[in-house]
Amino acid sequence: MRFSVEGVEGIGEIAAGDDLAGIIGAAVQVEDGDILVVTSKIVSKAEGRAVVAADRERAITEETVRIVASRAYEGGVTRIVENRQGIVGAAAGVDASNTPDGTVLLLPLDPDASARDLCLGLRSITGRQVGVILSDTLGRPWREGQTDIAIGAAGVHVFEDLRGGVDAGGRPLQVTLPCTADEIAAAAELVKGKAAGVPVALVRGLDRFVGDLDLPGARSIVRPADRDLFRQGSDEAFNDGYRAGFEEAQSEGPIETGPIRVAPGD
Amino acid sequence: MRFSVEGVEGIGEIAAGDDLAGIIGAAVQVEDGDILVVTSKIVSKAEGRAVVAADRERAITEETVRIVASRAYEGGVTRIVENRQGIVGAAAGVDASNTPDGTVLLLPLDPDASARDLCLGLRSITGRQVGVILSDTLGRPWREGQTDIAIGAAGVHVFEDLRGGVDAGGRPLQVTLPCTADEIAAAAELVKGKAAGVPVALVRGLDRFVGDLDLPGARSIVRPADRDLFRQGSDEAFNDGYRAGFEEAQSEGPIETGPIRVAPGD
Repeated sequence: MRFSVEGVEGIGEIAAGDDLAGIIGAAVQVEDGDILVVTSKIVSKAEGRAVVAADRERAITEETVRIVASRAYEGGVTRIVENRQGIVGAAAGVDASNTPDGTVLLLPLDPDASARDLCLGLRSITGRQVGVILSDTLGRPWREGQTDIAIGAAGVHVFEDLRGGVDAGGRPLQVTLPCTADEIAAAAELVKGKAAGVPVALVRGLDRFVGDLDLPGARSIVRPADRDLFRQGSDEAFNDGYRAGFEEAQSEGPIETGPIRVAPGD
Repeated sequence: MRFSVEGVEGIGEIAAGDDLAGIIGAAVQVEDGDILVVTSKIVSKAEGRAVVAADRERAITEETVRIVASRAYEGGVTRIVENRQGIVGAAAGVDASNTPDGTVLLLPLDPDASARDLCLGLRSITGRQVGVILSDTLGRPWREGQTDIAIGAAGVHVFEDLRGGVDAGGRPLQVTLPCTADEIAAAAELVKGKAAGVPVALVRGLDRFVGDLDLPGARSIVRPADRDLFRQGSDEAFNDGYRAGFEEAQSEGPIETGPIRVAPGD
């Protein structure tokens, strides 16, 4: 089992209206089973998702479906939000580096649809059965630093489904759903320098994860908030609980002293 | 920029006391700048970290530094905890698949120290400047499925430090600290089948991340809980807040109705 990851040179600056499939198809020789990992930023650029920089805060607000957590720091506020694409991260994916002067970039409106268009275009141009992943860079709880994840996917199995599998000793596997799309996006980041501007990586040798265009996209990776143990930041949840407890005590509610299990509404 | 990832065949079953550096060194031809990603499970086995399976729940409790979140489901309780190694995940890293019959495996006591021993051994045996990452598989908030991360590292830069860097337009980079160790661990998972039992991957071409043995280990990736917006599950934080608010109202405290910002103690 072996694969390689290579930065694709010669993509150049992307502008609104550019034919990404044509540009990428011309920059790289693909084979059946190749996966192209494309930084979502150049998809946003091609789709004309730039807005003027003065509107950055408004753009973040508009892209936000719900605020998950926030914390003030010297000079501003970090807002962790769920954006339209279901991704939980800082600034709703609104990007202010490597963008045209005076603008910020929003994420593609529907990254899975963008990935599908690009995959279809690349398959049509090259005649090869390739897969496409659109990547973005995200922080995460409990660990410093950022990794790239898949926000869009087409023609790629985003999970390796091992549910029901057993280990060499016949016992059920504990890990049953490796998120291959996120792992491939992470691998691709290692050749796509942030400063150098290599927005596409070619992953060769993972043919077994490449498939039909109608496979579930990266949206299927998003866990619904009501099934998530961390759907709200600790401070936010504490404060909601504080208000609820305070009001309950004031309203002559039942006096409880033991452990309380309340299902907070979001 | 290009690298390859390859599963290392022929490692075989590992038992307590085995010389891992010798076994891995014999199974693979390394070059300067190679990184070996080793599933932490075989390090645990070599270090004799198996305990009898009847003690699984006690083992989880003993490995737990703090409970972050928990949720009951049919047939049990999911406990998300911080373990001795600083990793936040389910079951404190106590592993019940691919283990000797009747036993569960604990993580290495000090994965960075284990990585350093292994790296030193491999450098000594092979005469090559290699790096070592110990990986484990983890779920994450907000996204389904699991990815591999680095729980131990030696001779590898765990971050690519871009702080202070600028983009092509001279603006500060938004993403400043890609977690290379986690990205390399994720890439390696793609060739290390869970069921197939390939516990080591050879990563070649990322020489620029290989360095001295005294580089900071994977422990430096762990974010201190007090700086984390998700140091506690939403339900747990809500319930703590509820109790605090309830008690405050009962104790004739000041009546507050506006938004409350409280710094909850953990």
